[in-house]
Amino acid sequence: VNATDATIGEIGEGATLARIFPILPSSRRTILGPGDDCAIVTVPDGRVPVTTDLMIEGPDFRIGLSTGYDIGWKACATNLADIAAMGATPTALVVGLAAPAETTVRFVEDIARGFHDAATALAPGCGVVGGDLSNAPLVMLAVTALGEFDGVEPVTRSGASIGNVVAVAGQLGNAKRGLDILFDRAVAPDGTIDPVAVAEAWASHPVDVAAQLRPDPPIAAGRAAALAGATAMMDVSDGLVMDARRIATASGVAIDFDLSTVGDIDALTGGEDHAMLACFPVNAKLPAEFRVVGRVAPGEGVLVDGVPFDSRGGWDPFTDYSATSNQ
Amino acid sequence: VNATDATIGEIGEGATLARIFPILPSSRRTILGPGDDCAIVTVPDGRVPVTTDLMIEGPDFRIGLSTGYDIGWKACATNLADIAAMGATPTALVVGLAAPAETTVRFVEDIARGFHDAATALAPGCGVVGGDLSNAPLVMLAVTALGEFDGVEPVTRSGASIGNVVAVAGQLGNAKRGLDILFDRAVAPDGTIDPVAVAEAWASHPVDVAAQLRPDPPIAAGRAAALAGATAMMDVSDGLVMDARRIATASGVAIDFDLSTVGDIDALTGGEDHAMLACFPVNAKLPAEFRVVGRVAPGEGVLVDGVPFDSRGGWDPFTDYSATSNQ
Repeated sequence: VNATDATIGEIGEGATLARIFPILPSSRRTILGPGDDCAIVTVPDGRVPVTTDLMIEGPDFRIGLSTGYDIGWKACATNLADIAAMGATPTALVVGLAAPAETTVRFVEDIARGFHDAATALAPGCGVVGGDLSNAPLVMLAVTALGEFDGVEPVTRSGASIGNVVAVAGQLGNAKRGLDILFDRAVAPDGTIDPVAVAEAWASHPVDVAAQLRPDPPIAAGRAAALAGATAMMDVSDGLVMDARRIATASGVAIDFDLSTVGDIDALTGGEDHAMLACFPVNAKLPAEFRVVGRVAPGEGVLVDGVPFDSRGGWDPFTDYSATSNQ
Repeated sequence: VNATDATIGEIGEGATLARIFPILPSSRRTILGPGDDCAIVTVPDGRVPVTTDLMIEGPDFRIGLSTGYDIGWKACATNLADIAAMGATPTALVVGLAAPAETTVRFVEDIARGFHDAATALAPGCGVVGGDLSNAPLVMLAVTALGEFDGVEPVTRSGASIGNVVAVAGQLGNAKRGLDILFDRAVAPDGTIDPVAVAEAWASHPVDVAAQLRPDPPIAAGRAAALAGATAMMDVSDGLVMDARRIATASGVAIDFDLSTVGDIDALTGGEDHAMLACFPVNAKLPAEFRVVGRVAPGEGVLVDGVPFDSRGGWDPFTDYSATSNQ
């Protein structure tokens, strides 16, 4: 078997792990890394934020639109964003990967490289400390991220107060536009993907396509927001309106967006932005990454320019997924 | 829609989560539970063991052999065993569940009940603090467990010394026999499962079938072993010989089993036992759960009654899985 074309079924679990361990990013908080029943990570202040996400071939990515590298990058970046959204710094990841036996070792190595590069770029010092590899008829990633608060208080969704300003760090709407572009140009009605059209979409709309396939969430902005006194914060993964409604509900307030500063309807309802949405006291000095997009008001739910915005927005993996469209 | 027959696709992600949250076990180490970007867990001594495992329909369980309750129980128990095998006490779990949209809410509730009952029985105080729910063409669970050392030193695989005794807590071989019984009697050559035969297998061989479908690993024995001075330990998940070989390799020693105390060939090579395999100084007072089954010797690999045992043993999800047999 040519090593570059070998499949994980041909070389088996142990040999595949031996190929990817050297590629994975390492964590500066590791006491014990991969290879035992558990990894062990230090948590200096005794409080550990933990988040887990599944990324499943079909609802969450399609091979051909995403490379293995993109899949690894996005799985890493989105979990880092959930840690950052608490005001914490990501320190360690564990990664479960299931894939068909006929998957090439090279594809799995590309996933590992995506993790390496995303962790290095977005959260230096955070690494993969353990994982699991198994056999499934489709590719699935299960990522769990840990972090540390390092002296700041966690920022939940429930602390927004009337009069707070509402601010966003990162992109809004680009990920949705990127998905629309890819589906319009590169996915046939039967779900077949045209690799030339994918390359052309990257070339013609690099910002939007990258926002969808290789997102760049503002990880450091999460801790900066906590230090600046943010009262509530979350990662915008299901669309700005849907996620803002969660802060509004948890905090018992309304959130009123100013459409001229948010942007457009894609920015309000498009999913997978992984921007940081935070509320701050009106006299707080906002970190440089944040721009004001609204205010916290009495009432409930989400308003746009003072008018209740009742469109659901966002995305549900059960009711919204179709194998042949981007909805 | 009748609530007991509703599918998760009909009611969606949010309503499904609302149904299962009240069932899930709660953790005494929770600072913040489900519903935010992260959960937050206390780690009193600043060191957190973390382990993750995938359980996938097909290689890891079959619906019809396992109920939803069994699947939840086993996913919980096996992850608790990995924490225990470090000498730690399990404190918190995060659970990713992917399932087809046509899965009933009742099936998902049964999985949650399995988690509740396993955590309550095996590791009181450990609970589910967060998770993710997604859509896939088959049922997959991704469980990550955290724990605490509470003053004991972690017990890795690499500390076994020549002259140590080798001891086991828990069952050996039963899980393999249970799988053989289920496949012999209840799984047709085309993979079809006969539910009457499953019930008969439970009735006629309750110990072996339970060891396979609803394992009962000796969680408290892990911490007891650490307190008693264990030099190396692991959870026996891939078979006693295959896992002992890992301790032998990591520690640079050989492990010599006494067949008369181990039992039989199933006990040596059968997988999924989730017993604790530990090495102790010869003068250590072994916790009550442990029985001596061998000793640590000079050399490498695994011996049985002094003779090198070269049969591979154990199980690889890529090279050993077949949809229609128990190998």
